[in-house]
This record gives sequence, structure tokens and C-alpha cells, in this order.
Amino acid sequence: MSPNCLLLLSPLLLTVMSLTAFAAEPAMPKPDFVIAIHGGAGVEPAALTPEGAKQYEEALGKALAVGRDILARGGTSLDAVEQTIRVMEDDPLFNAGRGAVFNSAGGHELDASIMDGASGKGGAVAGVSTVKNPISLARLVMTETRHVLLLGAGAEQFADEMRDKPQIERVPNSYFSTEMRRKQWEEAVEKEKKKRSGDYKGTVGCVALDKQGNLAAGTSTGGITNKRFGRVGDSPILGAGTYANNATCAVSCTGTGEYFIRNSIAFHVSALMLYKGLPLEAAVGEVIHKVLEPDTGGLIALDHNGNVSMQYNTAGMARATTSSAGKTEIKLGK
Amino acid sequence: MSPNCLLLLSPLLLTVMSLTAFAAEPAMPKPDFVIAIHGGAGVEPAALTPEGAKQYEEALGKALAVGRDILARGGTSLDAVEQTIRVMEDDPLFNAGRGAVFNSAGGHELDASIMDGASGKGGAVAGVSTVKNPISLARLVMTETRHVLLLGAGAEQFADEMRDKPQIERVPNSYFSTEMRRKQWEEAVEKEKKKRSGDYKGTVGCVALDKQGNLAAGTSTGGITNKRFGRVGDSPILGAGTYANNATCAVSCTGTGEYFIRNSIAFHVSALMLYKGLPLEAAVGEVIHKVLEPDTGGLIALDHNGNVSMQYNTAGMARATTSSAGKTEIKLGK
Repeated sequence: MSPNCLLLLSPLLLTVMSLTAFAAEPAMPKPDFVIAIHGGAGVEPAALTPEGAKQYEEALGKALAVGRDILARGGTSLDAVEQTIRVMEDDPLFNAGRGAVFNSAGGHELDASIMDGASGKGGAVAGVSTVKNPISLARLVMTETRHVLLLGAGAEQFADEMRDKPQIERVPNSYFSTEMRRKQWEEAVEKEKKKRSGDYKGTVGCVALDKQGNLAAGTSTGGITNKRFGRVGDSPILGAGTYANNATCAVSCTGTGEYFIRNSIAFHVSALMLYKGLPLEAAVGEVIHKVLEPDTGGLIALDHNGNVSMQYNTAGMARATTSSAGKTEIKLGK
Repeated sequence: MSPNCLLLLSPLLLTVMSLTAFAAEPAMPKPDFVIAIHGGAGVEPAALTPEGAKQYEEALGKALAVGRDILARGGTSLDAVEQTIRVMEDDPLFNAGRGAVFNSAGGHELDASIMDGASGKGGAVAGVSTVKNPISLARLVMTETRHVLLLGAGAEQFADEMRDKPQIERVPNSYFSTEMRRKQWEEAVEKEKKKRSGDYKGTVGCVALDKQGNLAAGTSTGGITNKRFGRVGDSPILGAGTYANNATCAVSCTGTGEYFIRNSIAFHVSALMLYKGLPLEAAVGEVIHKVLEPDTGGLIALDHNGNVSMQYNTAGMARATTSSAGKTEIKLGK
């Protein structure tokens, strides 16, 4: 069954339209609000059963609706990004929060970051192991400390200090374990597979534009299956995995983080808009197809005019977007 | 005594020339090799005694000579960067390796990164506590793993695996302690001072162009005095504190890392050259004086034609450069 057929199965897909058409309507007025999410590049739609694809699309639609409702009520893009990502962190289907992949030590280390396009401020945590929703801890790093990135035991200590905040729930590391991820890990260990492709599936991200015209972006992940203990990818790094700037765009990336760090991919999209004068779609295209090597990942981006671009150089990328104009799209492949 | 007077005291200063003049000579042939280093922004030359300034300049000159000799012998820019930074890590005067600042827990956590402009590959470690020369461990992350950033206990575990390499020497965490840094920490704790300025003095960095035309950059630091346990700044983040690309430039930053991360400062210089068509000096000027807020730091940069730019928005920045053309400059202030 082709990816296009899968789309028809989704009860959540109110309006099916190609992204190209979406981006190529300059005459459209700027929407009041827009949100876009991803559930990771590397997903191969052709490898999914129709039921599996439907499950994925429903999970994307559920998360998208949470952020959309916040924005529709006049909430901030930061709230929409945090709450939408929390839904995906709580869903075992995604490689973030519950359902995070296993590292080489058989445990879980989670990374997340969030950035506010209005102030240019951001927060991030890397290598946390007992925080149920790392995206919320990342936001507290932004608002409650003078730092932007806390790691490992230091991030856990900060979570201890934030224990009065209802959004900071603690869990044993085993909470993040799921049978699906354990199997993936056991297969990875057995095969000692070094292949890049597919092993980072399921990172989640969200970009949003609120009614006040402010952009925000966030990303959360469990990293790469069987990753070396202590390895950090692009997700907790502002400029690499996450970036937001009201003057240009908001970006959340997914893929083999090493390539995204080396090329400052999230900021790279903004730089192409600001310094090369490219529109969003062209800037994202250049980053995905020229700067990055093939089969390394994808990203979602949203500019200050409400244009959305979601591109990838892998077999697929779970993604969805909606806006005040009512245009909803939920896709896994082309 | 003015900073200019201090320069005259240095026996290492063979040729005194303004940096502006250095960058404004387009007719000069490309030098065979060039190296530039920094020992941190935030140094206030006016606050130093003549003896203190001389000590700083001699330390810079000693490190610079090590890298220059490697390049003169036809060695690689990566070797020059690693070995030059090792010299500064071993010198208790700088906030990197021995002499690293104290964190809020009274210990030391060190960060370092290195990047190869020829391949675009890089490696970094964050929050290491027993590795004498973090820059060498960062280089091994680049060459011996599929990752680019390892943190904390994971980085220590990787150092255990690399124990056969002579460049990976282990030390107790107390090795990094010096009386000067302990006093700074005690003062910081006492005053609970939140001021940005000055508390990150002494990060070290190096950029080099070798005879083969390859650029490399590296940065090493102990972070900010009394920093929160687990805090990571820009130094171990490729694109933020360190960047190298043979097509544009090599960059090493120093300052309040949070600002450098949020604005992808090291990569930002490269993006301004590549996408806005600015020459190195103008690109660095825009980043230091327009993108960054005042009193947040500085950087050294070297383009593929051998031009050097060393700018800062603080009271001073310890820095030095030399090249095959014999032009040597060692400065703390203007």
C-alpha cells in the first residue's frame, strides 16, 4: 500500500493537500496561528502496516490538536510547543519520554530544548534520566536559571529544586522502557549495526506561531538506539536541533544529530533567510538537500508569515500541521 | 599604564601592528601558514600590574610558538590546534585544564571541542572531571567514535577506553584547583554575584591554517566561576563556540556562553561570509557588535586566505597571532 493510500485511512485528515501547494500561496493572508509537529524522520511508510500507519497518524493528530487549541484560545506559542511535546513524550510510540530508545548501557538518557523567538532565549537539558517530561525541564532552564544547557546529574539536581512545579514529575528510569524499544536495542546489539538510517526514528518536535505573532520551537528525544553512554545529539542544542527567531523562523530537526550539529542546521535555515534572502521553503530545501548528506534526517519549519515547510532526505518523516485557516495535513511519507 | 604601554614590555612582541592594518592588506600573498590563539575575553588590561600583563603575554607567546613550529614543519592545522591548546590547558593562568574555575559544588567540570575544516568533522566533550587535557579527548571523540559530543560520566568512560593513548592522562579532580581560582570562587559565593562580566575569564582557543590549506579550530574551558553543576556553555558546542570550514573560516569563541549558543556565533561568522558575502573582518564585526549584546565576549577567526580577525565587546581579550610571513602580535587590550 502506498503512502498516499495510507493518508486516506486517517479520520483526522480533514483536508489533504500537498505541502508544495501550501507553501506556494503568497496571496493568502497571514493566518492567526499555525502549528506544525514531527514525530521523527527515518520512518518508512512502506514498512508499516495500514494499522501501524493509522496509529501513528492518530497520535500525531492528538498532539496537534492540543497545541492548536492552545493557540486558538490565544495562548502563547511557547505553551503550545511545550504542551504538544508533552503529549508526544507521554506517548510510547515516539522516541521521547516514555518509549525512549535504550542506550548501550540498557538505560535511557533524554534530551530536550525549547526556544522563544520573541526574546531569543532558550533552555535545554541533556542526558536526564528521571524526568518524565524533559521539555518542561528545558523550559524551566530558560526561565529559572541564567544558563541555557544543563546536563546529566546537574540537570537532575535542578529538577530536584523544581520539585514544587507540577509539570516536573519524576519517574524511575524503567518508566521509559517499552518492549518495542527493547527489541530494537537487542537487535542493534546483536547485529552491532553501524547503519545510520532508521536508528533515530521517533524524535519529536513542534514549531508554533501564536496570535501575538511570536514564534517558538521545541524538540525532545531519547537519542539513538544503542548510543554510547553520554552521547548527545542535536536535540538539546539550540542552533543545531532547535531554533526560533521572530525575524525569520522556528525550526525543529530530527535525524542523525551529529550531522545537524556540525552544520548548525536549525540556525542554518534562519541564516539562509536572513543573509541569502531565501524564502522558507527554499532555505529548508537547501539545508536538507545540499548542506546535509542524503539519508540523515529532516526538519519542520515555520516562518513569521505562517508559511510551513516540512522536508526530509530519508524514506519518510512523521509530520503534521494545522492553522487558523483550518488547513490540516498529517503525513508519514510523500 | 595603558594597554599600549604594556605591549612594549613584551620581549615576545617582534612586530607590533594594529589588527586593522593586518586585515586591510588585500595585496599580500596568502601566507603559507597562520595561527591565532585566545586566552579568554573579559580580561581587563587596566586592572593588571605590568608584571601580571607580562606573565599573560609570555604564556600566550609560549603557546603560540608551539603551534607555529608544528605548522612551519608542515604539520596539520589539527595538530597545531590540539598541541597549542594543551599548552594553555597545562598553564594554571588560563581557565582550561589546570587552573579551571570552581563550579558551585567546589569542583571542576571541563568542556572542549575541536573541528576539522577539511572534512567538517568535529568532536567535543562536556563536563569531564579527570581528563588532564580535554582537547585531546575531544579529538578522539571525532576520530574514534561515530558521535560528536560526549558528556560527563559517558565522556569519562570513553577516556577509560582510550587509556592506551599517551595524550589521555588522568588526574584527580583536585589537580585542576589553584589558589587563584579558589579565591575567585569564594568571592563569587560570598557576593552571590550575578554579574556576567569577568567571570568567564581565561577560556582558551586556537585557529590554524596549515601549508596544505586546511583550517582547524579548537576551544577548551573550565566554564564560569560558581556555575551551576552540570551547566554547559558554548565551548563544547560545534557551531556555537568552535567552527571550521575550509570554504570560509575557522573560529574559536570566548565569553558568556549562553549568548554564543543562542546565536550560533561561531557558525554565524561563516554564514555571514558564505551567504551575505562579507569579508572575515566585517563578518566578525557584525557578530561581535550587532548580533551579541555588549560585554558578552569575543572571538578569534581565520579565513582560508590567511586573514585574521580578533574582536571583542568586553574590556579586553588575551590574544596572539603569527604566520609564515613573520607577523606576530600579542595583546590583552586595544
